Amino acid sequence: MEVKEIELKGHIIDSFILPKVFDTIMDMGGDFHVEEFIIGKEKTEPSYTRILIKGRDRQHLDDILGELIKIGATVPEVEEAELKPAPKDRTLPDNFYSTTNHPTYIRIDSGWVKAENQEMDLVIVVDRKARTARCVPISDVRKGDLIVVGKKGIRVEPPERPRTYSVFQFMNSAVSSEKPTDSLIEEIAREVLNVKKRGGKVLVVAGPAVVHTGAHKYLAEMIKEGFVDVLFAGNALAVHDIEHALYGTSLGVNIETGRPAEGGHRHHLYAINEVMKAGSIRELVETGRLKGGIMFECIKKRVPFVLAGSIRDDGPLPEVITDVIEAQRAMRRELKGVELVLMLSTLLHSIAVGNLLPSNVKTVFVDINPANVTKLSDRGTAQALGVVTDVGTFLPLIRKKLKKIKA
Amino acid sequence: MEVKEIELKGHIIDSFILPKVFDTIMDMGGDFHVEEFIIGKEKTEPSYTRILIKGRDRQHLDDILGELIKIGATVPEVEEAELKPAPKDRTLPDNFYSTTNHPTYIRIDSGWVKAENQEMDLVIVVDRKARTARCVPISDVRKGDLIVVGKKGIRVEPPERPRTYSVFQFMNSAVSSEKPTDSLIEEIAREVLNVKKRGGKVLVVAGPAVVHTGAHKYLAEMIKEGFVDVLFAGNALAVHDIEHALYGTSLGVNIETGRPAEGGHRHHLYAINEVMKAGSIRELVETGRLKGGIMFECIKKRVPFVLAGSIRDDGPLPEVITDVIEAQRAMRRELKGVELVLMLSTLLHSIAVGNLLPSNVKTVFVDINPANVTKLSDRGTAQALGVVTDVGTFLPLIRKKLKKIKA
Amino acid sequence: MEVKEIELKGHIIDSFILPKVFDTIMDMGGDFHVEEFIIGKEKTEPSYTRILIKGRDRQHLDDILGELIKIGATVPEVEEAELKPAPKDRTLPDNFYSTTNHPTYIRIDSGWVKAENQEMDLVIVVDRKARTARCVPISDVRKGDLIVVGKKGIRVEPPERPRTYSVFQFMNSAVSSEKPTDSLIEEIAREVLNVKKRGGKVLVVAGPAVVHTGAHKYLAEMIKEGFVDVLFAGNALAVHDIEHALYGTSLGVNIETGRPAEGGHRHHLYAINEVMKAGSIRELVETGRLKGGIMFECIKKRVPFVLAGSIRDDGPLPEVITDVIEAQRAMRRELKGVELVLMLSTLLHSIAVGNLLPSNVKTVFVDINPANVTKLSDRGTAQALGVVTDVGTFLPLIRKKLKKIKA
Amino acid sequence: MEVKEIELKGHIIDSFILPKVFDTIMDMGGDFHVEEFIIGKEKTEPSYTRILIKGRDRQHLDDILGELIKIGATVPEVEEAELKPAPKDRTLPDNFYSTTNHPTYIRIDSGWVKAENQEMDLVIVVDRKARTARCVPISDVRKGDLIVVGKKGIRVEPPERPRTYSVFQFMNSAVSSEKPTDSLIEEIAREVLNVKKRGGKVLVVAGPAVVHTGAHKYLAEMIKEGFVDVLFAGNALAVHDIEHALYGTSLGVNIETGRPAEGGHRHHLYAINEVMKAGSIRELVETGRLKGGIMFECIKKRVPFVLAGSIRDDGPLPEVITDVIEAQRAMRRELKGVELVLMLSTLLHSIAVGNLLPSNVKTVFVDINPANVTKLSDRGTAQALGVVTDVGTFLPLIRKKLKKIKA
Repeated sequence: MEVKEIELKGHIIDSFILPKVFDTIMDMGGDFHVEEFIIGKEKTEPSYTRILIKGRDRQHLDDILGELIKIGATVPEVEEAELKPAPKDRTLPDNFYSTTNHPTYIRIDSGWVKAENQEMDLVIVVDRKARTARCVPISDVRKGDLIVVGKKGIRVEPPERPRTYSVFQFMNSAVSSEKPTDSLIEEIAREVLNVKKRGGKVLVVAGPAVVHTGAHKYLAEMIKEGFVDVLFAGNALAVHDIEHALYGTSLGVNIETGRPAEGGHRHHLYAINEVMKAGSIRELVETGRLKGGIMFECIKKRVPFVLAGSIRDDGPLPEVITDVIEAQRAMRRELKGVELVLMLSTLLHSIAVGNLLPSNVKTVFVDINPANVTKLSDRGTAQALGVVTDVGTFLPLIRKKLKKIKA
Repeated sequence: MEVKEIELKGHIIDSFILPKVFDTIMDMGGDFHVEEFIIGKEKTEPSYTRILIKGRDRQHLDDILGELIKIGATVPEVEEAELKPAPKDRTLPDNFYSTTNHPTYIRIDSGWVKAENQEMDLVIVVDRKARTARCVPISDVRKGDLIVVGKKGIRVEPPERPRTYSVFQFMNSAVSSEKPTDSLIEEIAREVLNVKKRGGKVLVVAGPAVVHTGAHKYLAEMIKEGFVDVLFAGNALAVHDIEHALYGTSLGVNIETGRPAEGGHRHHLYAINEVMKAGSIRELVETGRLKGGIMFECIKKRVPFVLAGSIRDDGPLPEVITDVIEAQRAMRRELKGVELVLMLSTLLHSIAVGNLLPSNVKTVFVDINPANVTKLSDRGTAQALGVVTDVGTFLPLIRKKLKKIKA
Repeated sequence: MEVKEIELKGHIIDSFILPKVFDTIMDMGGDFHVEEFIIGKEKTEPSYTRILIKGRDRQHLDDILGELIKIGATVPEVEEAELKPAPKDRTLPDNFYSTTNHPTYIRIDSGWVKAENQEMDLVIVVDRKARTARCVPISDVRKGDLIVVGKKGIRVEPPERPRTYSVFQFMNSAVSSEKPTDSLIEEIAREVLNVKKRGGKVLVVAGPAVVHTGAHKYLAEMIKEGFVDVLFAGNALAVHDIEHALYGTSLGVNIETGRPAEGGHRHHLYAINEVMKAGSIRELVETGRLKGGIMFECIKKRVPFVLAGSIRDDGPLPEVITDVIEAQRAMRRELKGVELVLMLSTLLHSIAVGNLLPSNVKTVFVDINPANVTKLSDRGTAQALGVVTDVGTFLPLIRKKLKKIKA
Repeated sequence: MEVKEIELKGHIIDSFILPKVFDTIMDMGGDFHVEEFIIGKEKTEPSYTRILIKGRDRQHLDDILGELIKIGATVPEVEEAELKPAPKDRTLPDNFYSTTNHPTYIRIDSGWVKAENQEMDLVIVVDRKARTARCVPISDVRKGDLIVVGKKGIRVEPPERPRTYSVFQFMNSAVSSEKPTDSLIEEIAREVLNVKKRGGKVLVVAGPAVVHTGAHKYLAEMIKEGFVDVLFAGNALAVHDIEHALYGTSLGVNIETGRPAEGGHRHHLYAINEVMKAGSIRELVETGRLKGGIMFECIKKRVPFVLAGSIRDDGPLPEVITDVIEAQRAMRRELKGVELVLMLSTLLHSIAVGNLLPSNVKTVFVDINPANVTKLSDRGTAQALGVVTDVGTFLPLIRKKLKKIKA
């Protein structure tokens, strides 16, 4: 029987940290003894506990500790993080530590250093001289990078439950369909404005349904009016947005009537060809040929966008980043400063972006399919809000609220 | 090898009747020889064909013929329908003919008689003296009723494809999600008004999501303004509608804020109890205690409603018909004259009502779940329109269109 | 500001009781002060806490307390339950207490009495003389019945997390699709046998897909072999089961080939008619006409069944209880002693039965649609297990495991 | 009013070609006059018709003709195809013809030339000297390539309905869930063997659920036994397949027990790292480190595979083609000779591959989500079969059938 002491502090009961610690130990067949427990007597007062964890043997104890550290447990005895160099490019030393999406601190030379670019399933590279640490995907690891290994000297800070009611659900994937109420949309709009006020950025991740439903004009307005700081999408969104600006259709369907336009099935290829003729979307705007829509407003307003490629793409447009690893890098660059993400009707892009976000970024998922909303909300995000509705309903409503509250 | 000649006439190519005839023969391993074929040369000109059907033996030929008659084939040689008496109540003679949902004619005493109350999976009871025929469910068959048996003397008239574009899809279960466009909703509203203008009735079948989404006030307005002639629903819709009128919540949730009301989980039971105290919904209205909502407007406007029971029901309210066969009978009575049905977010009731409708009643299915819309549209209705959207979005939009067009 | 003290004891941290208490207070805008906290130091040692709850005023405090009592909080000062007579049949006194699905105790004459027939959304009727209490639906309340009102003298005991890993999820609606592993099915089979061994009953709730997938023969075998004690279903299951026994089809489709049988669309009506001719399913068995299938085995093995009606029903068969309130009563009668429920591919019946179950009955939901499994699991059941798979796959596998383990 | 004559021949009624021609004309507001109609009198005898199409003006007529040509109409007067050079790389001349997925012939120098590499939404590049034509994506068009423009000299041959029953549905997206019957799976297995016998190739497109359900061992066996000629997948399938081979888990879950393995959440990153250390999957096999699984069998058996990248990828593995356009090219290369595709539980890859297939390749879609199966089947494939079931059920059954039939 091997034992080790852990510590937990903060709002560990209602943030589900302590229940998860007990849950994990029992599920893994371990045992525990609570050595000290000081409960926060008031709503805002933190709690504290020291618990002795018991495993069958060293390996079992280590496995349990590995899980507990990810949940937020720390080991009271101060230990330095272990570091080992990467043996070659894109290759890791054995027993490397893989990250969660919660803020993480590394013990180097007797001090705690916060890892930058927090994101899950990465490794942590330490620069001893500069006393910095950063989360890095395996594809960006270079030979000799010092990688954190083992479980020592690592502190994870899971998010705490807000002390009051919030429309963003805490660690909860429950999604109720059919309730995009006025007041819910108002609270999302307020959050957008709060983020902007404190200098944060708002990211929109949008799928082609935004255009198919005719809601792209509202998103274009939101971009024009300064409510959107970054846009992530795929080739299809840009193609159909430009198709609509040039021909009034989306995938050949007249958006106003919902009926296929005559000869419309070729419009998306025509739109691609017009961009090709101009050289790029930017040039199509500059030549005055593209006069409206989401991409037009992004370019006019200098809102950065990342169009990431997929194997379904037709064309694709010149601005599309066809290498997926390059596209990930481009998205990571633009995520700096993002505090709120609106994910609009795209499963692939939402999952991909969700993987790149730290747990403290607020996310709103809008999709007509409840299963997609459940899937997206259920990814360990601390403050997620799933809205089961048509984006064609959501976008005009939120834009109206944004304008009203701002005025 | 047995053979028999059939005839087809009308717009048999573009109404998919002839393709289905060939399809059925080939799928069933039969053979055919086209004896005569006169194509309609213009859009409005009917076609005509006589085809010799070949089966392996009499049984095989009969099976094929049975299917072809349901699709609309007739046998040129004039034969009287065969009739046999029901041996006892709720019991049929062997080899009884079961109906489709298409208009059906029965050959009695050298004349064709149209069956009344057309509905699928029923039997046809003939009154020889009165020279009438009517479709009857097995539960309403009485000893001695003359039931049509076999395949002779039966003519089915499947619906024909309209000669121009219609928003109602012809024999097509294809459902595109995310496109409840303005013009689509306008066309539905126009259809409502057309039906009303020619003296037809509009039926609304509504699930409790109508209340949960806060859209019940728009449905209540539509009832008040005379756009709805009949309402079918279950106990839950009525309970939550009354709950909202009395306590401002739906299943305990404040509809305006989307948050659970304090103590709200009991509101639906409180609402039931208030109705029980008054004696009935009608009495709650008459005492002035119930002042608004769907049920209130139905009672005030004398719009007939059928509340059908289900095994999930709490209560139920006194107006709920707890015997399901009685509830079917009540619905059948109210279906007379109905030409358009709006089915709003209820799978159970929509399937049940869909089963009771002849194929020429136009149906609009509104549901947020694409799988439900597909399931509902896919029931052999000639003119169905599936709209994948939140009822909370649909109802305010259609009500606005109705008021605008009417004005 | 109004205050009141509550107590909690047991495994209140890892059973999520204390976190939910804090969560509820904060969501409702209340405040708290922890007065005493004794943590269970070991896995099996209970914890204890006394907390002062603070509300803005009496009403606010009462609302908060109402919620906390449902979660398992008790008030330390001993108070008698308040009782008021029902003013008339099916009518409740104001401020009646509505039940949860957790075991509930009522304080009568200085003693705690356990309420019988625990089920949610009912009221509690007390028999003072007999010192008994029982949960009763509003439809069964009779004038003069003494009903528990208010919040005093009520103690709810929510289930506690098992001290070890269990395949049944604790208070958790998370459903992983695509993993009906061998070992999962083995654990369900073991649970069936455990329940049987200790004298409990196993209930199967089955939808018609059990027959459409051809899996009814495995369910029939399970009934024959004594693994099923009660069966709940609807008209459709029985009709298609008998249709298959008589004609080899289910809704006209040959189950072995998956192809429509010639003339098969009438088979379900033929099957109904055969039962009608015999008088009942039982008589069809007794006359030797029905020779196999689910209903046959139930009748032969004297396994009680409840066939509950719905407004979609064709026929229905004579054994179907067409009055839904009568059907609920019949189900309640048969639920006595049931410890495990297998719900097989039926949303309507599963929800209805789920509403009738106390929180300590283990439930397994099998459905091919992940959304249905989520919906069903998410009903506050303490020990639920959702399996996303085809019943046609599940039933042969579990039957095999049952036979193997038993042998 | 402008008119033009078209011709149709073949099984144009039951293959839905003539109904679609009439449908399209009516939906587009055009008119027609049937000039000649010779019906196929027997099952195997083709029909023939000449129809005068009428449009409001030249543009309207042209739009209608454009649609009719895609359906299979030809213009009787012999006209040469119009060709125009591409103005620059990846750029098309105006009015280019975009392809359907049906076999297409181009009229060059008084002869009909079949376009190679048929696929939808591409353009046709003609090599006049070589008298060849091939379908080319816009990304592969080079300056000066002669592109087919307009509507002249193009003949499309839509597939015809088989003359007998087939398990593959003809032009039909109807998907029935819950019926992966024995005989259905046997028919798929027979088709696999038929294709192999006549020298065609079988392609498997597989998602990671194949591994999560533990069915990868059956797919690995099928590869080893020679039933699979090509494999398309993404990074995730390969990672989890290797993860299972090395650590016995899939995404950290022990496949045999369905429970998370201790420390298992890092296994997929460990698996990636092991491949990185070896250099590639191939090298991991060659060093003897990787000893089983799907990727192992592909490499051992020299079955070509394409692993296409997506923006969700971790790693990715060295064999993954991270540029999506390169990945499309690689898939196109491997599609030569493929006659049957099994698409197993992957929406993204199935849609992408579906877009690359001509209409005469048979496709089987297996997915547990009925909505996905509907979406996939509904893409104009002539012979598609949707099976709504768990791949974990499907793969063992089909492998068993394959072995049995072959033996």
